[in-house]
Amino acid sequence: MKFDKYVAAGNDFILFNGIKDTEKNYNELALRVCNRHFGIGADGIMVCKKSNIADIKMLYYNSDGSKGEMCGNGIRSFTKYIYDYDIVRKKIISIETLAGIKYITIETDESGKANMIKVDMGEPIFEGSRVPVTIDKEKIIEEIISIDGKDYKFSALTVGVPHVVIFVEDIKSIDINDLGKKIENYSLFPKKTNVNFVKIIDYGNINIYTWERGAGRTLGCGTGSCASVVVGNLLHKLGNKVNVNTEGGSLIVELEDNYKIFMTGSATHIASGEFVNGLSK
Amino acid sequence: MKFDKYVAAGNDFILFNGIKDTEKNYNELALRVCNRHFGIGADGIMVCKKSNIADIKMLYYNSDGSKGEMCGNGIRSFTKYIYDYDIVRKKIISIETLAGIKYITIETDESGKANMIKVDMGEPIFEGSRVPVTIDKEKIIEEIISIDGKDYKFSALTVGVPHVVIFVEDIKSIDINDLGKKIENYSLFPKKTNVNFVKIIDYGNINIYTWERGAGRTLGCGTGSCASVVVGNLLHKLGNKVNVNTEGGSLIVELEDNYKIFMTGSATHIASGEFVNGLSK
Repeated sequence: MKFDKYVAAGNDFILFNGIKDTEKNYNELALRVCNRHFGIGADGIMVCKKSNIADIKMLYYNSDGSKGEMCGNGIRSFTKYIYDYDIVRKKIISIETLAGIKYITIETDESGKANMIKVDMGEPIFEGSRVPVTIDKEKIIEEIISIDGKDYKFSALTVGVPHVVIFVEDIKSIDINDLGKKIENYSLFPKKTNVNFVKIIDYGNINIYTWERGAGRTLGCGTGSCASVVVGNLLHKLGNKVNVNTEGGSLIVELEDNYKIFMTGSATHIASGEFVNGLSK
Repeated sequence: MKFDKYVAAGNDFILFNGIKDTEKNYNELALRVCNRHFGIGADGIMVCKKSNIADIKMLYYNSDGSKGEMCGNGIRSFTKYIYDYDIVRKKIISIETLAGIKYITIETDESGKANMIKVDMGEPIFEGSRVPVTIDKEKIIEEIISIDGKDYKFSALTVGVPHVVIFVEDIKSIDINDLGKKIENYSLFPKKTNVNFVKIIDYGNINIYTWERGAGRTLGCGTGSCASVVVGNLLHKLGNKVNVNTEGGSLIVELEDNYKIFMTGSATHIASGEFVNGLSK
């Protein structure tokens, strides 16, 4: 089965052409191909399919086999894949995802390949029942969550997928794996949640440390970067154009009226080939 | 650059045809291609080259870019690669490694591909100065090493590469990452060392937990499996044919006269393709 591997801001993905292949069970394929010893290794897989309502449709599966609505770094990898392989050769592309249609603008490099990719991430959802969080409020901003007897101030919102944002002064004081897992599975979040630990450098720069729902600790998360900038801006800690340093690379997040979000970054093609065999072990 | 990925008992490798390619810097290639997010991801790389003294030569590099003398699971992956790709199509193959010439016997499956691969691992080296360990003895058996104020009984020997073997009753009582790293870099071992934590099930079965020099925590290690069986046999805890359960899969280790070691196991072809780009980041 043909595959391509991409990385975008530290999130790595295996791409498949679902227009050509005949695979039936992408959940199980994700488990096998994403395994870092017995497969190729990745944070998730993406599959392109024909769409009736957009230029192309993107299916996304996490490394644990679960379906994801949307992935900010993933959609840039996906865009580079479909553009560079001429699957859709347009500089403004519409992509159908489980989180709605996403509009993408591509800048190419001198070789004509996709370089900087700007994604219209839409508007965040703040309302508790829609994030979803079991707190009945218009906006879930600076609430308290208690883990192992310690209180953390968090905000929650959905940017395609649900996110929790926690600002930290000293990231070394946080056990990201332990806390991330516990918050992901906390009963407050009926659909679980991604968790972003954010250190503010100044009005235009943040560092971010990511725990992803279904994928665990990763080097970065596009929708999480957007969610973090939105919360920082709401709390007047950040401006409306912020450079986000994830552990895997940099992104620019811009906010327009009504918190309409645009995220810009690159993606890198690592490898292409034939996936022969893999165990989900 | 063309690549293939294989896994053998949980150790995964990227294979390159060094007879065809023109790569000059394999250390740096190993760093880039083995990175699990910005490259394809593997424990190490192996490169085949022409040999003047054997059927073929194997170069081996760990994921940190350092050169390895020999790798027990690696050589099975290497053998399957050169056999299945017709680079050397012989059922008994001699392979030049930095640890000497290794002789391999191949059993094929019904499709004619290499299946069970038996490696003559040679004889272990016990003498302290040759392991090397800075203890002047004929055999380094059940010596004491003190880490963070706690004493551990260890044996040390070389099976291609230096190994420390520590028998444990309860693996959960050991912090493998912490202890492995500290022993690897302990001044007793001038060339550093691999570390094997071994639980004896019965006379013919062991479980093994691996810390590899230069690669860190891995799911298994072929030479470590051999080293562990040799020590267990010397101490009359194990017979001369032992099933070794690594975290990544099973191996059979057999001992003949003078502790001549034979290791048998399989290897699986995961993927093949073109390595386009990778960062050592």
